[in-house]
Parts: sequence; C-alpha cells; structure tokens
Amino acid sequence: MKLLIPGPVTTHRSVRAALARDFAPWDAAFQPLYHGLRARLLHLGNGTQAAHTALILPGCGHFVTEAAIRSLIPPGGRILVPMTGAYAERMARLAREAGRVPVPLPVSPVAPTDPDAVRRALLADPSLGHVGLVYSETATGVIHDPAAIGAVVRALGRRMIVDAVSAFGALPLDLAAQPEIDAAVFTANKCLEGIPGAAFVLARADRLAEGAGQAGSWSFDLADVAARLAQGEGPRFTPPAQVLAALGVALDRLDAEGGPPARLARYRANSRVLYDGMRGLGLSPVLAPHAQGPIVINIHAPADPAWNLQAFVDAVKARGFVISNFYNTARPSFRLGAIGALRPADMKRAVGAIGAALESLGIHERKAA
Amino acid sequence: MKLLIPGPVTTHRSVRAALARDFAPWDAAFQPLYHGLRARLLHLGNGTQAAHTALILPGCGHFVTEAAIRSLIPPGGRILVPMTGAYAERMARLAREAGRVPVPLPVSPVAPTDPDAVRRALLADPSLGHVGLVYSETATGVIHDPAAIGAVVRALGRRMIVDAVSAFGALPLDLAAQPEIDAAVFTANKCLEGIPGAAFVLARADRLAEGAGQAGSWSFDLADVAARLAQGEGPRFTPPAQVLAALGVALDRLDAEGGPPARLARYRANSRVLYDGMRGLGLSPVLAPHAQGPIVINIHAPADPAWNLQAFVDAVKARGFVISNFYNTARPSFRLGAIGALRPADMKRAVGAIGAALESLGIHERKAA
Repeated sequence: MKLLIPGPVTTHRSVRAALARDFAPWDAAFQPLYHGLRARLLHLGNGTQAAHTALILPGCGHFVTEAAIRSLIPPGGRILVPMTGAYAERMARLAREAGRVPVPLPVSPVAPTDPDAVRRALLADPSLGHVGLVYSETATGVIHDPAAIGAVVRALGRRMIVDAVSAFGALPLDLAAQPEIDAAVFTANKCLEGIPGAAFVLARADRLAEGAGQAGSWSFDLADVAARLAQGEGPRFTPPAQVLAALGVALDRLDAEGGPPARLARYRANSRVLYDGMRGLGLSPVLAPHAQGPIVINIHAPADPAWNLQAFVDAVKARGFVISNFYNTARPSFRLGAIGALRPADMKRAVGAIGAALESLGIHERKAA
Repeated sequence: MKLLIPGPVTTHRSVRAALARDFAPWDAAFQPLYHGLRARLLHLGNGTQAAHTALILPGCGHFVTEAAIRSLIPPGGRILVPMTGAYAERMARLAREAGRVPVPLPVSPVAPTDPDAVRRALLADPSLGHVGLVYSETATGVIHDPAAIGAVVRALGRRMIVDAVSAFGALPLDLAAQPEIDAAVFTANKCLEGIPGAAFVLARADRLAEGAGQAGSWSFDLADVAARLAQGEGPRFTPPAQVLAALGVALDRLDAEGGPPARLARYRANSRVLYDGMRGLGLSPVLAPHAQGPIVINIHAPADPAWNLQAFVDAVKARGFVISNFYNTARPSFRLGAIGALRPADMKRAVGAIGAALESLGIHERKAA
C-alpha cells in the first residue's frame, strides 16, 4: 500500500527499520544523534552556526508554528498572513488564539502570492511587524515564493515566519541570504520522508533571545529551548527518540539522492505524471499548469452523478494507493500527494489505479462538477 | 542494552515491531486504531463514556499537562500544587507561564503528601479552585495518593488535575469514583511500556465544555479537540501514527499480563530487588522502605572520593544497563527505574552490574556523601 497523500508520506523501509530500538534520551549514545540532526537540518536550510539555531520540538507542525509565533511575536503583535488556503487560515488561528493579531491579506488561491500585494499591505500598516507565509500551501498545491516576498519584507524592515512544513527538504530555503526570516518551521514526515511525531524550527538566535519571556507558554518557549541547548544541556522534555532516529536515516537518504535539488526534481517528475495522467483520464486539475506545484495536485470532483469521494477513495485503495478522504478546497476536489519515497513509475501505476477505479464506479462525466 | 530509567522504558520487541508501517491518519484503516486506543485508555482509568473523554495529543507529558491546565483552569485561576519534587515544580512552571497562578504547598520530599495539609491549605484560601497533584513523583520515587487527597478536594468542592505520567497503567486510577478529577494526564512511554511521542488525557467532558474558549492556545485547547471528536471527526493535527500503533500492541501486552494490578505487582517485585540489592551493596537508598514507591529508586551518591556519576553510568552501561546521568534531587543521588518490559531476573542482573561497576571504579565507601 502506497500513500499518495501530502504527508505523512510513504517512507523507505530503512527509515522505518530505524524505529525499532529503545533509547535513553539523555544517554551518550543518543546525544550525538540529537545534535547531529540539528546541525544537518540547519545546513539544509543554509543557516549559519553564528546566526541561527535548529530546535527540535516533540509533536506536530501546528505546535511548532504556534511556538514560533509565541517566541518571536510579542503578545498583541500583528502579523500579516497572505490567505493562501487552509494552512494560512490555521496559522492565523494559532496566532489569534495565542493573543497575537493576525491580519489577513486576501490573495488568489490558484496562483503564487504577488509580492507587490504584500508590499502595499506592509506600507499601509507600519504596525505589521511580521509576515507569516505558507511556503507550500498543502490545501491548494500552490508554491509561494519566500525569497521574493522576503525581499519586500526585508526592504521594509519587517520580519518573516515561514511555514515550510510541506516544503523543507525539497523546495529551496536559504536562511543566510534571507536575514528577515525569524523562523522557518517544518516536520519530519513531509519532504524529509521521515515519520510523524517531531517538529523543527530553524530560527535566528538573536531574535529568539530578544523575545525571551514573551511566549506565554513554557512548552512553546523556543527561547528557553535555545538557551538550554546553548548551555550544553540536552532536550528539556522527553524527545520522540525513535522518530528522530528514523529521521537520521531519512536524511542519509536525502544526501544519497543528491540533496533537496535532486529530491525536488523527483517530485516534479512525480507531479507531472500525476497531473498529465489525470488530464489523460478526462479529469480537470484545479490549477493551471504554470501554477501547479510539485507537492500536491488537486483534481476537481467529476460532474458525474455517480461520483462519491469515499467510494472513490475505497476503489483506489483496493488498487494499492491511499488518497485523502476529505475535501480541502471550497469547491470539491480530491487531492493527490506527489511526495514520499515514490518515483514516477509508482505514479504511473497510481494513474492506472485511479483510471480503473473511475471505470469500476462508472464515472463517465469527468469534467468538473 | 536495557534501560533502567523511569521512562522512556525498555519496550518489548513486538511493541517496536508495530512501528514499521506507514499510515494515512485519516484512512479507514487507522481510525479504528485511534478511537480504539481512546476507549481502552478510558477503560483503564475507569472513566465512563457518559462523563469522560479520552484525548490524544502529539508530543510529550509536559505538553498535555499544560493543555489540561489551560483547558480546565481559567486565566488567573489558582491551583494548589503540593511541591513533591521536580515534576511538581514543572507543573507549577507550566501553570505560571500559561497565566494561571500556582500556589505552592511545601510538603515532604520523602513521604506521601498528607491530605490534611491539603485540606488546611484549601480551607485557608477559598480562591484555590484546583489542586495539581503529581501521582508518582519521578524525581523522588514517592507515590502520592490521589484517592486520599481527592476525597479532601471533593469534600471542599474543589477540582483536581492529576499528573499520572509515571503512574498510569500500573498504579490504580478510578475516575468514576473520583468526580473531582477534571483531568488525568499521562504518556505512552512509562508504565504503559510504549514508545515516546504521544500524550493522553482522560478528562471530564462537562468540565472541558464549561471551559471552552479559555485555553489561550489552539494547539492546547482540549475542549476543541473533544468537540471535534464528538462531531465524529478525526484528529485535528497529524497524529504520531506509528507511536499509536505501537501503543496498541503495548496495551495488548498489558491486558495479557493481567492489567494494571499485575503490572504493579511486577514493578513492586522489580523495585524490591533493586532496593534490597542496593542495600546489599552497601549503598543508601534515599527513601525509607515504607516510603519507597515501585517506579523509581534514588540512591545517595556514595561518599567515596572516587565517585563520579558519569564514570559510574558508563561502567554500568558497559555491563548492559543504561541509567540516568543527571541528578534530580537536592542532595546528589543516582536514579534507577523499576518499570518497562523488565522482570525481577533482569533486576538481579542489574544489581550485579552495578556491584561490578562500583568495584571497577574502586568505590569502597558507599554510604551517603
């Protein structure tokens, strides 16, 4: 069974095999793994040892997003959030419930966010200290451009938090070139092709230190995490040791593949097979080809009255592929993930499985409902 | 290599084997596991379907403790915390940084907390809405009595939050008999003998609903988690699926062993072997026999000038057992865990390993420093 979802992804068996060991998290045998992961992740984001720190948080992407917001934006601080889709809405909700003020910027759900729109919004409101950008909007499949938007943010002396959850490990990130990025957050189980249960942040150490004491949550106080590590201490709370051990193997595989550029090339090839394959089946992708990112492909639900999402998901699963069984967009669309330990040949088989599933359900009218 | 620490514990190979599978968390194949775990955990705490809900949070014990505090105590609300040791201090810090007011109650670090002391403190301060009790204080090894303290809390019309992290699965918990318990929190990787990366709370559904909107954190808003599940929806955020699958097998093993009473009997036998064994080696346990709990045994650092904790830890590890390499008590003591997939025969070998380690290091003066 292959997972054709935008994370948790299909993992390689060597990654899963690394889970099968007990660890004492404070043991000398675990500490090199823990700090080695931090250094490797920092390197992947081109952070510098002088300016940045890589921190590990137990849990999920939402947790580390909230932690970054709390640790880098003071209570009552305002953050401009381009409303790219469901994950931007989630970032805004995390900020709002933490007592920060998210200011939504309406943007297109089918195209990359225009940096000029961000510029205008920041110029119009000097109280906007931060921009919160979802790099790869999992709800739509659109990739936004942190470099282009960051240039605007930098020029205006503002700061940025990047949700890189379904981007990091494949799409480029260059923290050294983007000093306006206070933090980039991500998890193990997307483009890094690890197991869910751990979340990460690459953050500017100076900015964390400046914000020390403002988190309003000990669990999510990244300045406290960083201060402990700077003193040579280990993790504050029990880390998900097995999940981290698996990530170590997953990073070995990323290196062996040729790093993020090679991984991105594979995901692009995967996504092209899926995109073209769906069109070949008479289905309608939500995004135009030039706007389609390499991570997630949304396909309009077919107009055929026989269409039923769960029946379709079951029919595809019976043919070896698991896809998401819920709608993530305003108009109904089903969603395919192009990431994980899968290759274009797997995607060709997936297209075949989806075609056979449509036939078995008698879905003949395949244009958008 | 056996972990002789109070969690993460040594797990059975069948538990670790359950990790090696990919899951789509929203898939029909995963949902029965997810909701099945919730029902099994609720049953273990003798919660009732009518009054209680079992919730799963990604992350660690501190996270779910903060979530319970935020979700059940309003901002500015006051919670009496018997200061049993490091984990009570941590609960107080989590509450304070979340904007609640922990009121410390000084108690003995070497004996169970006196319910009368709690009664007097609550009588003296009607503004204390909650008591926060650490059931098994991992820092000291003392077991406190939530039933006896709960009776006081109940009689005075107050509420209780129980940190059952290193208790649940072995020490008794009877939520049906203790309606004053708003929440009991715990993790997978202590007495349940699972893998770290998931945390749990058994909570009163009515109390969560009454506190809806007060968490001040979407990530830690247990009322929101409960409301979603009550509507038949799945987890809000990506769950640590493999860790939960492993917990399923760990619960099968708990059932097969005879449930919490049988597990507690094994831990008691384990701890007696360790306690008596350390005395047999001329070492001094911190706690008197009547105060010694079955989870953690602290041993005073020996007076011998050759004593060095890390050298000792290394020498014990060379003989097959990992123990904690840091001090957790005011006076230096080393710490042994009696829990995990280990039996008295393992503990006899551990005593032999510790004795050999002391010999190898030339530690002859073994009474407390």
